Amino acid sequence: MQIAMIQDKIVPANELEPVYFDRGIFFGDGVYEVVRSYNGKIFALEEHLQRFANSLSAIEIAGIDIDRIRSRVRKAFDAAGISNAKIYFHITRGSAPREHVCDADLEPNFFLTVTEMEDDTEAKAKGIAVSTHPDWRWKRCDIKSLNLLANVLARLDAAGKGCEEAVLVDEAGLITEGASSAFFAIFGRTFQTAPLTANILPSITRKFAIEAGRNIGLQLIEESLTPQQAGSSDELFLAVTTKDIVPVVKFDGKLIGDGKPGKYTKLLTQEFRSFTA
Amino acid sequence: MQIAMIQDKIVPANELEPVYFDRGIFFGDGVYEVVRSYNGKIFALEEHLQRFANSLSAIEIAGIDIDRIRSRVRKAFDAAGISNAKIYFHITRGSAPREHVCDADLEPNFFLTVTEMEDDTEAKAKGIAVSTHPDWRWKRCDIKSLNLLANVLARLDAAGKGCEEAVLVDEAGLITEGASSAFFAIFGRTFQTAPLTANILPSITRKFAIEAGRNIGLQLIEESLTPQQAGSSDELFLAVTTKDIVPVVKFDGKLIGDGKPGKYTKLLTQEFRSFTA
Repeated sequence: MQIAMIQDKIVPANELEPVYFDRGIFFGDGVYEVVRSYNGKIFALEEHLQRFANSLSAIEIAGIDIDRIRSRVRKAFDAAGISNAKIYFHITRGSAPREHVCDADLEPNFFLTVTEMEDDTEAKAKGIAVSTHPDWRWKRCDIKSLNLLANVLARLDAAGKGCEEAVLVDEAGLITEGASSAFFAIFGRTFQTAPLTANILPSITRKFAIEAGRNIGLQLIEESLTPQQAGSSDELFLAVTTKDIVPVVKFDGKLIGDGKPGKYTKLLTQEFRSFTA
Repeated sequence: MQIAMIQDKIVPANELEPVYFDRGIFFGDGVYEVVRSYNGKIFALEEHLQRFANSLSAIEIAGIDIDRIRSRVRKAFDAAGISNAKIYFHITRGSAPREHVCDADLEPNFFLTVTEMEDDTEAKAKGIAVSTHPDWRWKRCDIKSLNLLANVLARLDAAGKGCEEAVLVDEAGLITEGASSAFFAIFGRTFQTAPLTANILPSITRKFAIEAGRNIGLQLIEESLTPQQAGSSDELFLAVTTKDIVPVVKFDGKLIGDGKPGKYTKLLTQEFRSFTA
């Protein structure tokens, strides 16, 4: 590696920090997690660490001590002193000159941020609008990887339409999930979401949303929905770590119900609160 | 953004260089190119710049002046003074706290490296072994994006089998392309490769390989191959920027021809040399 250039500036490559040669940036060769705290308590950390271990294993990044990751998360969370915090962390295969295949003994890079949760009171009270977008993602969406360009493009498209989330539709015309959330519809006293076999992320908030739905007496149907079915549902909601349950009141421009968060979504949100207390 | 953590070290987030918050690492939200020089002359730079512009446009990174990118590439290449150089460059949407949707006026990040080409005399003389892997990539492989984890995983799998390239096979059982190359088979006096509609990269070296093949009297068939067809071909080769034509002599463990680079592949390589002289 002889020469590097950042914007218009030429620099000797060996004077740059390793982060410039992170395989995360060259290939998205890493995995991540997002956890949040409620009133000073991190929610479902063990579930997120387990999924992180699964993602690392799936992309064959070996030798990561999950106990050490747990300590780092706790240490950073304590240091930040933020009661309602969003904690993001990723591990990449490491830093090296750009070649698809690298040495097996490369040291993985760990990076974490702790930020204050944004206030989502309004989104929860009013509900949000969503729009559909083709699901362009890869075939291993069970891995929580740093390859998120398809998600970003879908979200940019949604934002251009004044929507706060993109709902992804696969080649068979079926909804998989949101660009960064799980997607649920309510019909009568049933609630429906795509099965984990539909190339979706094994969402932890999805799991808790299912538990909450059952607790309030709804019956679960794990079956993919078409956009048409979703548009004619009684209620829609998203499940996402950073906001737990988010009511959806507009789907591709069409009002859902009376255009306000539905009664079961409200009950489910309340029930979810009992998990995080 | 309050706290960040790198390996075991806690740092105030605002003291970190913007590269740590590059959307390239969080999302692979960027596009790249690789060009090479032959004896002090960059090959096909205009074609690569045109494709780079297409990729930028496809992911809606606006306001990039391609003339300025050309100047940067030339300036860095001149500064490096490497006769046979590999020039890698990418642009990401910019650096910002991690949110899928960012401000439209974010300043994109440009990064480039110039390195010396590795010697590929042996690979060209002996030919290489390849192995197949499921094509897990996203549905927009026409965009040369930083989302390359599927390619990396395929290459790691190939390396584990002692192979130097992975040949990707889609859900229909058809070969799309190599993990970082275009893939060609020769049968008699025809040469065959997947059409650009098969969710492959519009490879520039593929284009020149097609021209070279026609120049030596081969007839082109743009039709996807099955692994079985490829395994029973007379000759196989890859087309890739950094090595132009690479003979393939073993396919999923099966010898191709007599296990040595074939005659048309050699003629084609020679013809390709006339383009780069």
